[in-house]
Amino acid sequence: MRAAQRVLSGVRPTGKLHLGNAMGAVNNWLRLQREYDCYFFIADWHALTTDYADTSAVRQNTLEVALDLMGAGLDPEQCVLFVQSHVPQHAELHLLFSMITPLRWLERVPTYKEQQENLSGRDLSTYGFLGYPLLQSADILLYQADLVPVGQDQVAHVELTREVARRFNQFYPAQPDVLPEPKVLLTPSPKLPGVDGRKMSKSYGNTILLADPEPEVRQKLKTMVTDPARVRRTDKGNPDICPVFDLHKVFSNAETQQKVREGCTTASIGCIECKGWAADGIVRYIAPMQERRAALAAKPQQVWQTLHAGAERAQQRAEATMRQVRDAMRLAPHAAPIASEKEATRA
Amino acid sequence: MRAAQRVLSGVRPTGKLHLGNAMGAVNNWLRLQREYDCYFFIADWHALTTDYADTSAVRQNTLEVALDLMGAGLDPEQCVLFVQSHVPQHAELHLLFSMITPLRWLERVPTYKEQQENLSGRDLSTYGFLGYPLLQSADILLYQADLVPVGQDQVAHVELTREVARRFNQFYPAQPDVLPEPKVLLTPSPKLPGVDGRKMSKSYGNTILLADPEPEVRQKLKTMVTDPARVRRTDKGNPDICPVFDLHKVFSNAETQQKVREGCTTASIGCIECKGWAADGIVRYIAPMQERRAALAAKPQQVWQTLHAGAERAQQRAEATMRQVRDAMRLAPHAAPIASEKEATRA
Repeated sequence: MRAAQRVLSGVRPTGKLHLGNAMGAVNNWLRLQREYDCYFFIADWHALTTDYADTSAVRQNTLEVALDLMGAGLDPEQCVLFVQSHVPQHAELHLLFSMITPLRWLERVPTYKEQQENLSGRDLSTYGFLGYPLLQSADILLYQADLVPVGQDQVAHVELTREVARRFNQFYPAQPDVLPEPKVLLTPSPKLPGVDGRKMSKSYGNTILLADPEPEVRQKLKTMVTDPARVRRTDKGNPDICPVFDLHKVFSNAETQQKVREGCTTASIGCIECKGWAADGIVRYIAPMQERRAALAAKPQQVWQTLHAGAERAQQRAEATMRQVRDAMRLAPHAAPIASEKEATRA
Repeated sequence: MRAAQRVLSGVRPTGKLHLGNAMGAVNNWLRLQREYDCYFFIADWHALTTDYADTSAVRQNTLEVALDLMGAGLDPEQCVLFVQSHVPQHAELHLLFSMITPLRWLERVPTYKEQQENLSGRDLSTYGFLGYPLLQSADILLYQADLVPVGQDQVAHVELTREVARRFNQFYPAQPDVLPEPKVLLTPSPKLPGVDGRKMSKSYGNTILLADPEPEVRQKLKTMVTDPARVRRTDKGNPDICPVFDLHKVFSNAETQQKVREGCTTASIGCIECKGWAADGIVRYIAPMQERRAALAAKPQQVWQTLHAGAERAQQRAEATMRQVRDAMRLAPHAAPIASEKEATRA
C-alpha cells in the first residue's frame, strides 16, 4: 500500500501566469501538494503542438512559469516539479502507445476539431497535433498516476488515457496490471473576469499577470469595464453585473465588499474609487508572491537547478514504469544495474 | 572535415535471417562497415508497427538477428551495432518531428496504403503505423547521417526524411544546418529464389536460414522446384529457367556451374544430384558463419553486453545531435556537464 495517492498534472508554458490561472490551476496545485504525492510538470513539448512555427519564447516561458509557480508557493520539496522535455521517457511511452492506438480514437477526441477551428490562423494539420492527447496519456500513465486533476473540458482526455491503459494491459498482461487506470479529480476553476469583462484568458489579451508591477495592476484596473448602465458618476450602479465587483468577491474582504456595494448602489462612490480598492486587494494578494518571485528571478541558474533536480526525481519514477512497460512488451531490457531492479516493482 | 561519411541502416527483428537477407542487407553492411562510419541498428520499435498485438518474440528475435549479423561477420568494433529501443533519443526526435510534419506527408507515403493492403489480416489503422516513416526519418537524422543504403522501394522514405530535415532547418535555423539532408546510397539486393521458386522471403515461407543445420538445408533443397519441363530423369533440362541453378550462380564455383549446365542439358545428371551440389555450396557458405554464431549463442549475456555497449556509443552520438536540436528549437537545456558541451558541435 502506498501512503498517498499519486497525482499528475501539467501546465503549458505559454507565458507568465495571470490571476485566472492563479485562481484555477495554481491554487489547485498548492492544495494538492499538501495532500498527495504530486508530479507537476511544465509541458513544453505540448506547447509545440500549436506553436511549432515560432518557438523562440519556449525556454523563457518555461522559466517564467516556474518562477510564477514557485513564487505562488509551490514547493519543489513537497512536490516533484519538472520540465516535460527533461524526462525523455514521456516520448518513449508516447511512441509505444502510438503502436497500439487506433487513429480513430484520436480523430474523435472532441478538442481535436474544436481547436483546429479556434486556432484557424495556424496550420494544425500535423501528425503531432493529432497525437497530443496520446502524449497526455503517456504523461499520466508514465507515473502510474491515481488521480488527474482536470476541469470538465479535459475529462475526455482522461477517458482516452483509461482506454489506452486498458488496451495496453490487455495486449501485454501482467499481474498486477502495468498501467492502472487513473481517475479524474474534478477541480474547481472559478471564472475570473479580465479587464474587458470576458473570462480572463491570455488569448483575449485581457489579463492581469501575477508578475505585473503595482502601477501596471492599477492602470489595467482603470481601463476595466464596469456596469454599462452606470455612465455618469451620479448614476447608481449594480455590483451584481459589474466585473469589477467579481474581482472584489475574490480579492477584497467582506468589509470592503460591503462598502463597495453600498457606495455603488447609492452612487456615493465612483468607479475609480471602487477600482482602486479592487487593485488594493489584488496587490495585497500578489505582493508576497512577487517578493518570492523576485528573489528566485535574481538567480535563474538556481531555478534551473531546481527544475533539473525535479527532472531527476521524475525520471527515476518514470524509468521504474518504463522497465515494467518494456518487460511486459517483451522488448530487450536496457543495460541496467542489478541493484536498481527493485525499483521496477510497483511499491 | 570528417574522415569517413556516416551511414545509417536498420533491420527489423522479424526472425532469423535467411540467405536472401544475406545476399542483400547483410552483404551490404559487411561491405559498408569497412568503408564508412556505420551505425547499424535492430529496429525493434519498427517491428511493433505491424506486430503490436503479439510481441512475445521481439526479444528473442532481436537476439537472433544480432547472432546472425555477427555470425555473418559484422564486427561491433568496426561499426556501431545497437538495438533501437536502447537509444530513447529516437523516440524524442520522432516526437519533435511529429510537431512539424503535416499529416498529408505521411498519408501520401506509397508504402502506407500498400502495406495496409498487403497485411490486410492485421489492423494497421494505428497512429504508429501512420507515423513509422517519420520514425525512420528520426532514425536517420538523429545520427546526422550522410548516406542511407536502401533499395529502390525505400527511396521515398529517404525523400520524406530530406523534406523533414529541410522543414526543421527552415523553422529552426542554425549555422550550419542542424540536420543535413542525407543522400540515398542505392544498394544491390539480388533476387534469390526460395524453395518454391518465388523470391526468397519470410512471408512466403520459402526460406533457407543462415542458421539452418546442414540436414535441414539438404532437406529443403530436395523439395525445391526445378525446371517444370524436366519431368522424368531422362528429360533434358534448361538451367536458365531453373531456380536451383540461380542458387548455383551464387553459391557454386564456375567449375560446378559448368558441370551442372552440361549434366542438366544432356540429362546425364538428375535433379537430386544437382541439388546436392547446390546444398554443398550453401553449406560451405554458411558453415563458418554458423561456427561463429554458435560460439556467440553459447554466451547470450555477452551478446547483450555487446549490444548495450553499442547503444552507449550510439547514445553519445545521438545526444550530441539532440543537444543541437533542442537548442535550435529553444527548448530548455537538459542538465549537462559543461565539459561535454563541446561534443554538441558537429565535427
